[in-house]
Amino acid sequence: MLYIIGLGLADAKDVSIRGNEIIRKCEKVYLEAYTSILLIPIEELKSFYERDDIIEADRTLVEQQAERILDDAEKSDTAFLVVGDALSATTHTDLIIRAMDRKIPFKVIHNASIMNAIGCTGLQLYRFGETVSIVFWEDSWKPVSFFEKIVKNRVNNFHTLCLLDIKMKEQSVENMMKNNNIFEPPRWMTCQVCCEQFLEILTQGNEDFQAAGITPDTKIIGVSKVGSDRQKMVYATIAEHAKENLLGEPLHSLVIPAEELHELELEFLDHFKLDN
Amino acid sequence: MLYIIGLGLADAKDVSIRGNEIIRKCEKVYLEAYTSILLIPIEELKSFYERDDIIEADRTLVEQQAERILDDAEKSDTAFLVVGDALSATTHTDLIIRAMDRKIPFKVIHNASIMNAIGCTGLQLYRFGETVSIVFWEDSWKPVSFFEKIVKNRVNNFHTLCLLDIKMKEQSVENMMKNNNIFEPPRWMTCQVCCEQFLEILTQGNEDFQAAGITPDTKIIGVSKVGSDRQKMVYATIAEHAKENLLGEPLHSLVIPAEELHELELEFLDHFKLDN
Repeated sequence: MLYIIGLGLADAKDVSIRGNEIIRKCEKVYLEAYTSILLIPIEELKSFYERDDIIEADRTLVEQQAERILDDAEKSDTAFLVVGDALSATTHTDLIIRAMDRKIPFKVIHNASIMNAIGCTGLQLYRFGETVSIVFWEDSWKPVSFFEKIVKNRVNNFHTLCLLDIKMKEQSVENMMKNNNIFEPPRWMTCQVCCEQFLEILTQGNEDFQAAGITPDTKIIGVSKVGSDRQKMVYATIAEHAKENLLGEPLHSLVIPAEELHELELEFLDHFKLDN
Repeated sequence: MLYIIGLGLADAKDVSIRGNEIIRKCEKVYLEAYTSILLIPIEELKSFYERDDIIEADRTLVEQQAERILDDAEKSDTAFLVVGDALSATTHTDLIIRAMDRKIPFKVIHNASIMNAIGCTGLQLYRFGETVSIVFWEDSWKPVSFFEKIVKNRVNNFHTLCLLDIKMKEQSVENMMKNNNIFEPPRWMTCQVCCEQFLEILTQGNEDFQAAGITPDTKIIGVSKVGSDRQKMVYATIAEHAKENLLGEPLHSLVIPAEELHELELEFLDHFKLDN
């Protein structure tokens, strides 16, 4: 049996009781270690589950050696642990398709993910449109396609959840050329950096962007460490967020709210204004 | 301290380890009993937590006597349990606003909700637009506004999650007139009934609906008991779903997918076709 188990957002204890029981009895345990980052280190997870044998599965392992995980699942109970919910990334869907193709039984143990925990902003989950991923700009590569999606949501009066870039296991050009398996330290985008990119896009003066009523003075919601005791939330303008890091340590996410907010949404956000 | 704790979707053991610990140590425990229905009865929850004193909070209690819950939270640790995630309904947001107004500290313990567990359909969570609620039609009241939202999502190439009506504590007109506190048994909408309503809307031949390319032959995904071991999923046309109940016992939800599906999404759904 293949178990795909969501670990939740912040803490080893965010796993469900059911998930915890299954992890302890599985023969093999893989931890997906690339589509997201747990706020706690893997060593803590290992000691929590009293298992030194948790296998960190990076993108290469999961995408290229999925059959190895499935071979295990065919022989005995195998857990594949995912930060957040079990099924928020396509790679996991792919793993299930392969399991179904091989007629290997599977079970999904769901958990919170940023996609629903973003309800912590007081914004109605119902009214979120397409989620966008914001990537780090490079000197020669500054994609703006995500902004078109934000505009589309805004025109439809939807909120937009923006997931900020996480770079795990990046290689420098030099190391890549030399085929060295040396990786740069992980990088995560702050709400500040994201808003700097927004400002640069806004100064380009695209008509669609203007029609969507997004300006440097548009108030957005920045959040960090959602679901943990150290969660932070600041409701301030894009310009204010761009000026300094108002949210401290990662992980950060942000929401560009719909143009019209409900009274209750506004009342909630009012408690997280910059001057509070 | 006020703890708002998500219980997850299906089972007493879907609560997180953290949530479980908090519930056991709280002085008072309320269970929200109206925006959704747990697949297990409250008696099972009581025995799981070894607490007979869990207070069922119906809509009247939460909306009109929220201050009573907050009075408790002001004095001692109080848990407010919510099926699914902690913050998927506006009433809970309202409770937090009142807590903040009264400077009562609060913590949210997130969990899975249908809003992210719907990833079990293999459809990418990123691509969902606004969520719609489908209400039971009455003889004299057949609202179609939700269908306009589906059309809007479809035109934008978004998936639509449809949450189907749940009637808890309904009163017959007679009992309401006589002011009798007698309630009808709970009712939940099946995917079949929902699709019957869809068909009736489609036969009205609204141009917008036609432009969105939704016909009786449009394939949708019906799901039941998401997150439980008895979860079911059927990918079939609206007409096929309307013809019979393909999903058994409640709770049911359904998804009207975007017009264009990714290869991986199609491949996944292919495993849940009617003739499989």
